[in-house]
Amino acid sequence: MEDMHYVIDTFFALFAMTLIILMVPGFAMLEAGLVRTKNVTAVLTVNTLIYIVASLGFLLIGYSLAFGNWENDSMSKWAAFLFQMAFVGKVINIMSGGVSERIKIIPIVLFALIASILIYPIVVNISWGADFLKDTFLDLHMYDLAGSTVIHSTGGWALLAAILIIGPRRGRYGKDGQVRVIPASNIPLVTLGAFLLWIGWFGFNGGSVGSISSKESADAVALTILNTNTAGLAGGLIVAILGYLRYKRFDITMILNGALGGLVAITAGPDLYGIYTPILIGLIGGLLVEVMVPFFDKLRLDDPVGALSVHLVNGIWGTLAVGIFASNGDDITLWGQIKGILVVAVFAFSVSYLFLRMINIFFPLRADNDEQLEGMDLVECGMEAYPEFKKSL
Amino acid sequence: MEDMHYVIDTFFALFAMTLIILMVPGFAMLEAGLVRTKNVTAVLTVNTLIYIVASLGFLLIGYSLAFGNWENDSMSKWAAFLFQMAFVGKVINIMSGGVSERIKIIPIVLFALIASILIYPIVVNISWGADFLKDTFLDLHMYDLAGSTVIHSTGGWALLAAILIIGPRRGRYGKDGQVRVIPASNIPLVTLGAFLLWIGWFGFNGGSVGSISSKESADAVALTILNTNTAGLAGGLIVAILGYLRYKRFDITMILNGALGGLVAITAGPDLYGIYTPILIGLIGGLLVEVMVPFFDKLRLDDPVGALSVHLVNGIWGTLAVGIFASNGDDITLWGQIKGILVVAVFAFSVSYLFLRMINIFFPLRADNDEQLEGMDLVECGMEAYPEFKKSL
Amino acid sequence: MEDMHYVIDTFFALFAMTLIILMVPGFAMLEAGLVRTKNVTAVLTVNTLIYIVASLGFLLIGYSLAFGNWENDSMSKWAAFLFQMAFVGKVINIMSGGVSERIKIIPIVLFALIASILIYPIVVNISWGADFLKDTFLDLHMYDLAGSTVIHSTGGWALLAAILIIGPRRGRYGKDGQVRVIPASNIPLVTLGAFLLWIGWFGFNGGSVGSISSKESADAVALTILNTNTAGLAGGLIVAILGYLRYKRFDITMILNGALGGLVAITAGPDLYGIYTPILIGLIGGLLVEVMVPFFDKLRLDDPVGALSVHLVNGIWGTLAVGIFASNGDDITLWGQIKGILVVAVFAFSVSYLFLRMINIFFPLRADNDEQLEGMDLVECGMEAYPEFKKSL
Repeated sequence: MEDMHYVIDTFFALFAMTLIILMVPGFAMLEAGLVRTKNVTAVLTVNTLIYIVASLGFLLIGYSLAFGNWENDSMSKWAAFLFQMAFVGKVINIMSGGVSERIKIIPIVLFALIASILIYPIVVNISWGADFLKDTFLDLHMYDLAGSTVIHSTGGWALLAAILIIGPRRGRYGKDGQVRVIPASNIPLVTLGAFLLWIGWFGFNGGSVGSISSKESADAVALTILNTNTAGLAGGLIVAILGYLRYKRFDITMILNGALGGLVAITAGPDLYGIYTPILIGLIGGLLVEVMVPFFDKLRLDDPVGALSVHLVNGIWGTLAVGIFASNGDDITLWGQIKGILVVAVFAFSVSYLFLRMINIFFPLRADNDEQLEGMDLVECGMEAYPEFKKSL
Repeated sequence: MEDMHYVIDTFFALFAMTLIILMVPGFAMLEAGLVRTKNVTAVLTVNTLIYIVASLGFLLIGYSLAFGNWENDSMSKWAAFLFQMAFVGKVINIMSGGVSERIKIIPIVLFALIASILIYPIVVNISWGADFLKDTFLDLHMYDLAGSTVIHSTGGWALLAAILIIGPRRGRYGKDGQVRVIPASNIPLVTLGAFLLWIGWFGFNGGSVGSISSKESADAVALTILNTNTAGLAGGLIVAILGYLRYKRFDITMILNGALGGLVAITAGPDLYGIYTPILIGLIGGLLVEVMVPFFDKLRLDDPVGALSVHLVNGIWGTLAVGIFASNGDDITLWGQIKGILVVAVFAFSVSYLFLRMINIFFPLRADNDEQLEGMDLVECGMEAYPEFKKSL
Repeated sequence: MEDMHYVIDTFFALFAMTLIILMVPGFAMLEAGLVRTKNVTAVLTVNTLIYIVASLGFLLIGYSLAFGNWENDSMSKWAAFLFQMAFVGKVINIMSGGVSERIKIIPIVLFALIASILIYPIVVNISWGADFLKDTFLDLHMYDLAGSTVIHSTGGWALLAAILIIGPRRGRYGKDGQVRVIPASNIPLVTLGAFLLWIGWFGFNGGSVGSISSKESADAVALTILNTNTAGLAGGLIVAILGYLRYKRFDITMILNGALGGLVAITAGPDLYGIYTPILIGLIGGLLVEVMVPFFDKLRLDDPVGALSVHLVNGIWGTLAVGIFASNGDDITLWGQIKGILVVAVFAFSVSYLFLRMINIFFPLRADNDEQLEGMDLVECGMEAYPEFKKSL
């Protein structure tokens, strides 16, 4: 019988891992659809190389740093690794999307390597892992089931550091502060990518319960997936309604980002809530996307895919939400959540900033204006994404 | 041991649910590929909003109406809900595809809400559910494992009601009855979408067996998936052969619709047949698509994606097929199947027609000719699907 | 308890099968993205018809020939069939990609039928199956878990036979031996397709372990999937590095082909290695793609998707690698591997060549130059893949 738990939890981890890997093409399609055609191939290349470099880095170094060792009694240690490995690329995917259309490939891939062997593993260690800082201030007691902070905010802080260094895309902001709209080039790809992410999230959050082989854990997994989905629905809904009320139009890229915002927000505690609370968490998540996307533009933080609003802001919101809606005064407290957010913020932002600055010395992050005008595809990849289609831009 | 059944059936329901949710991007890509580029964003938006609104409506109201309560002893009640929730959007997806290129977004989303909290739950209730009409004429004894009638015909009847109200696309039919061909804009998307649907069907039908945790149920699930696939193969094959014999050309959009027709036709009883009967059922399903697509055009029922032929006609055929090939004279009879088809037809068509008429008063369903000429994307969404590609149409 | 093994292994086989079927749209998108727009619809049609014809052929005839009978005690026989059925189309997909842009549809579909009812089943029989040639020279003792030779080389040999008969695309090679570059038309589709294949490989190789229901087999499945993924990562990495060193550019189509090469190479023995050996196997796999793609062009073997390098060469390499890294002097020897490679090579190449020659008499394989100039889409399918986009080529 004991073996059956081992077998089923191994199988379930592999199932969840598979769904998460679907997020690799998910992010790739989402971002490829949101940028201009002249930068599509570069975006796809960056996403692919991140998956390669980050996964290998995590296999060789990062995983051991994050968790101390590979041992696991409750499921195959290889399955446990695969599930965790599926996470690591996401952190850098989150970041790379936001610096699209002007980032050079070499430096972002170098950063992916550093993030996968050092930055992300340390965040995991102090949040979920073996914790070599046990009984110090950095022994976090934040509840973050599937990584609102550990994954999404970490990626978001790294993105903020990168945007501060790299600056906005050529021509994005006028001299008088006006924002030039740069339309997404392929809406079907955006939609496909967003739904692949959405489906991948079932594995991300559901798998993070860690077991499905008892009645209680099966319930927890199912509730987690239900609540995850609900928050995504609510996030999309509120953006659709607000957008329509304001502009009499339905902006599908904003609606999908609203849904993703809701999904990020629920990620810290999808197993903790009843089935209606996620509606509220998702509504606020979507609202934050609606409000923060123009706000970041006002700050001239140019983020072509809205990743700061979706991942950073909602990562924070989701982690706070656990403290607000699920505190038990014992191991989950609002202060514990805030402390976790702050520690990860300081660490992830400052270390990312430092490494990006160092990389920038040897491999400048930013493509210059001529390169941006030509497009990253020809400059970095020597090929166009759609060479046969006549362009009107 | 009892717990292991609960665990495995919960896991299996979540697996099946995940496959069904893949049908959301599946329908979205299929329909986005079949319409003209100027209507692609609107189609994607409609599909996304339907998923959001219908799922939330089913969570808040529809599920309880359909099944009476949430209790479930054989698996996690959250998993049981998620599996059923994955179905509900499909009903309206089926419908929305057929009114593409001239439907306004607000009214179709309102209809999605009504369908998910009222129309579909009642159909489920009298077919699969708690049946508050027990021992009345409406206590159906139709065998419809995964919804040839409950899902596909219900969606199809709603579509027929909508087409009667909304009329054909501008310019579709000439004065002398000739049909103007409006070509699909993106064949890779059509193909991708059709295969996502096909794969989702394994979850749809396989999951509808309801359990996999005994030897008998594992066999039933595997047979169900095998037969489902076989009918799809046969449906595609016959359309390929007939099309080639008639035109010396292979029309991939028709072949894929033929396969989908076979999949719809097998859906009522994939667990009831041996492994060769589905070939016959699928062949007839594909044949019906080949024959009915031009027939509906002759009736000037304009359906850009062929949904009437695929879902309505084959939903009826598949339900009849159970009566023909699997009657046992006891709980499955041809008359029971016919009665089920008729009751659902009368109910789904008339109630859909009524609500669509009511919606039409406040929010006209049909985009006017100028709007259609401009395209639904700019009119309803304020953005193009592929803004950079020069158009030749 | 016995039943639980049956249940879990059935469920796992269905899960693996589903992932493998994702490779149908995977191959379709990859190949559709790699060819010119005028041949996209034909490529999609061929992929779809291959799935239909090969699966039906395997259901009706091929499976019984390969395995002798349908009996299975360890899981549902329907699930065992479905898992094997999911393989068969891949063999012909591998082949059809390499003759894209000049192959006619009818003859390739006829070949798919023959391959699925005769050629592939015999290869399976002598490698994995009931072996009606037991105790003869053809009683192979090659270790080939998931088909480096049985699937990938078999497809590759058939492709080589086809390329020798059909010749290169019109205008591919100049009179002085120079190679005219024909760019891929849609890079997002290439990327999407490659990742769908990658994810499908988890089911392909993981499912080939045959069971997950004991602690040992669960470990074997997880290790198999881990090693599969690692080899793909390494294959992509080396091509990225070499390509950058040579051209200062990142060629995403080559990087993805390198990853696929690594995946093919690991496929013979992903369960046999520790977790670092796959890095070496994948690196060599990627290297072979980098080296062999221009080499085949030098031989004027025109292969638009690089399938000879990815599948044939790496299928051989992967089968050899088992003999090199995992020989036990008993049932796995280098000579056993070499013998297997040679027997399958002689059989698959010669029989494929023979049948293709015969088909060629009645249905010429090659589209003539005028047809190629017009594009296979209009000639064979009567429709364009992207009719609204103005073309610049």
